[in-house]
Amino acid sequence: MIGANPRAKAIADALEPVAGQAELVVICAEDYSTVPDVPPGPDIVNLTSGTTEEAVEAAKRFPGRYLDGALMAHPEHVGRPETVLVYSGSPDVFARHEKTLARLGSATYLGPDPATASLYDAAMLNFAWATLIGYLQSAALVNVEARTFTPLLTQWLKSTVADVIEGYAGQIDAGSYPGDEEWLELDEPLMRHLIVATEQRGLDSALPRLIHSLTTRGIEAGSGAESFASLVEVIRGGGQLPATT
Amino acid sequence: MIGANPRAKAIADALEPVAGQAELVVICAEDYSTVPDVPPGPDIVNLTSGTTEEAVEAAKRFPGRYLDGALMAHPEHVGRPETVLVYSGSPDVFARHEKTLARLGSATYLGPDPATASLYDAAMLNFAWATLIGYLQSAALVNVEARTFTPLLTQWLKSTVADVIEGYAGQIDAGSYPGDEEWLELDEPLMRHLIVATEQRGLDSALPRLIHSLTTRGIEAGSGAESFASLVEVIRGGGQLPATT
Repeated sequence: MIGANPRAKAIADALEPVAGQAELVVICAEDYSTVPDVPPGPDIVNLTSGTTEEAVEAAKRFPGRYLDGALMAHPEHVGRPETVLVYSGSPDVFARHEKTLARLGSATYLGPDPATASLYDAAMLNFAWATLIGYLQSAALVNVEARTFTPLLTQWLKSTVADVIEGYAGQIDAGSYPGDEEWLELDEPLMRHLIVATEQRGLDSALPRLIHSLTTRGIEAGSGAESFASLVEVIRGGGQLPATT
Repeated sequence: MIGANPRAKAIADALEPVAGQAELVVICAEDYSTVPDVPPGPDIVNLTSGTTEEAVEAAKRFPGRYLDGALMAHPEHVGRPETVLVYSGSPDVFARHEKTLARLGSATYLGPDPATASLYDAAMLNFAWATLIGYLQSAALVNVEARTFTPLLTQWLKSTVADVIEGYAGQIDAGSYPGDEEWLELDEPLMRHLIVATEQRGLDSALPRLIHSLTTRGIEAGSGAESFASLVEVIRGGGQLPATT
């Protein structure tokens, strides 16, 4: 794989004269095939997005000096203290460069397995995409100026929704989903209203239908009086379903 | 419909002796069929969740004294200043009771159409469910203690993701989705990685597959170099698809 990509070769050529003096090379390429060879010497921090397998392969290419990282932001957010970056791989590399890495944003070390940062990357992207597609669906549904509607949504996201998520974390860890405040059988008819309102306006209803379908599966599995967080069990069991139906 | 529900009757009976003296009755019932008759006199603020049609019907039941509302929170959040409540219907009722309503949380008036609050309710619930199901999916994928992983996610949600949403609002209003920072063709392979990572771990992949499918439709429609926000056009056009395929 190494050298097969002319962009990787070009980056490696440009790096060669300086790599000897550098203590750290930070790479953020389009994909792992573009990650260049780096001559022995500097530590490598690789922020490129890819699979967990690619992160493990990259760690083998740079033994003892590789830290995999994930930058959870747009380029414009780099350098803000609240921007989230996660790292996994060599603990020594993280310790040597923690202060430098803190200049990119908050730096969290997740342990020695180079695959961990990549898995967090995928999980956080999933979370962002789900939130953002939910936002786009809601903006299409309300159909007023998005700039009028959005501050209400983001205020709500930062306060109530973030608070609910933190409550769900405890429920997931406990494996117990008390439906004291909301429960699947309370949500289900509201989800049907949402599908009707969506389709009446000629909008794509795949997202509301997916939410309703997961909820219905949760109710059928006996969780009707449990909180929405109980759907984590539906998601966990999901991979086994095709075999039994 | 009125009187058909014994619970509505019970609430109405309980209200009768006090309604004569009250200036305002706030109702938050399980559904609209449980919304009781209220003798003439007090203004009605109805926080019950239902369809836009049910809100319009309720406004007809209480002419000149009806305000529809939506409480976007769990019961425990009521009374906090950051808790979002929206209202629509009689402007006079809102003006008369704005200070009282502010004690429940932030009070936003959306105009005289009693259906508006209900549509916002559906849109905000959709947004919450999408965000929360994304969270549950991510928690299942990372599979470490949720309480370890979650503070990173909520920090990210409140800063970067909220910031991205506010940027998208401007793009939606402009009908222009510049892909300067991220674009659908950059996202698409990362979404495939996410599906693989999800299925390798035996998890339900319906949510990542839906996100990938909407993105693929956006790329096919010519938006490959546009931002993720361009998917609002896919959602808007979605209702027409079944007729043409």
